[in-house]
Amino acid sequence: MIEPLNKAFCALPGVGSKTAQRFVYHLLERNREGGMNLAKALVDAMEHVKHCTSCRTLSEKILCHICASEVRDASQLCVVEIPTDIHAIEQSGVYKGKYFVLSGYLSPIDGIGASELGLDKLEQKLTNQNIKEIILATNATAEGEVTAHYIGSMAKQFDIQITRIAHGIPIGGELEYADINTIAHALSGRKKYD
Amino acid sequence: MIEPLNKAFCALPGVGSKTAQRFVYHLLERNREGGMNLAKALVDAMEHVKHCTSCRTLSEKILCHICASEVRDASQLCVVEIPTDIHAIEQSGVYKGKYFVLSGYLSPIDGIGASELGLDKLEQKLTNQNIKEIILATNATAEGEVTAHYIGSMAKQFDIQITRIAHGIPIGGELEYADINTIAHALSGRKKYD
Repeated sequence: MIEPLNKAFCALPGVGSKTAQRFVYHLLERNREGGMNLAKALVDAMEHVKHCTSCRTLSEKILCHICASEVRDASQLCVVEIPTDIHAIEQSGVYKGKYFVLSGYLSPIDGIGASELGLDKLEQKLTNQNIKEIILATNATAEGEVTAHYIGSMAKQFDIQITRIAHGIPIGGELEYADINTIAHALSGRKKYD
Repeated sequence: MIEPLNKAFCALPGVGSKTAQRFVYHLLERNREGGMNLAKALVDAMEHVKHCTSCRTLSEKILCHICASEVRDASQLCVVEIPTDIHAIEQSGVYKGKYFVLSGYLSPIDGIGASELGLDKLEQKLTNQNIKEIILATNATAEGEVTAHYIGSMAKQFDIQITRIAHGIPIGGELEYADINTIAHALSGRKKYD
């Protein structure tokens, strides 16, 4: 019963047998209640959490709280790769629009094409809803750029503004330590200063 | 159901909300079966794993497999701080004796005294069983040293050999990068070379 628990913990990303052993020992010796809580929370979540039918994020209800909100600006749609990206953007507190979650990026070699990312659903949204701006917030990786490019091309057939989040030197970051690609983006994306 | 699972994961040592979020997302999006497995393994372990009545390690049975073994040398007793230390020593493959697990170290300020570490049980073992050598394998920390010293003093009343595992430069380690305490131990613990 110790060994199977060890192996089960290894299913978590970034957890190897040493870390798993530490988890098992900690729970068994110091926090059995915490272990039982975790088991209950796991069953609850695995059985009841589905995807929001509108934006595809993880949600316990048919519509997530952002899609169901009357206050959020339905004319802006921010496209992100994964549900945790929404959490990151929400914490910045500057965005008041709605979201669309791809659950990944285009990767034909892994069999992840437009339909796996729900791009047909996104196209439907752009057709039927009164969306004025689509913000491409996929990651600044090669895959994220390709995905943004693909969605951008698809969105051109509609009369909407297509934007991409800015890339450049992070706030608090020093030029000296930035990598060359970031500096190149920061320079080519420079804005009028006043 | 997402938030409670997040919090439940934070009960694990070294897991903060960012890591917990990664675990939750990974299980919900990619491996729900793994999540259910983990829940089952947790309940099994929390409910059924007890302590070996002889050596105090974590065990599913009344006696752990090492204490129950007829092959292991019962005249040697290696005292370790935690059950995972046994695992580490077993992997080295050089020790054939039995173990005793303290489940911690002496720390009167935290209310951890001789009885919490089962030292009365250890004393009984030394009295009743035919033990010829006790190997003190507590950690090379201040607390581990104090604990080793305490057990060493207690064991002196019996006619047995009391030894401490060697401390020095790790195999593959370079003198240049060793800390001063390790070098001091390596020098004072030097042995005749032939």
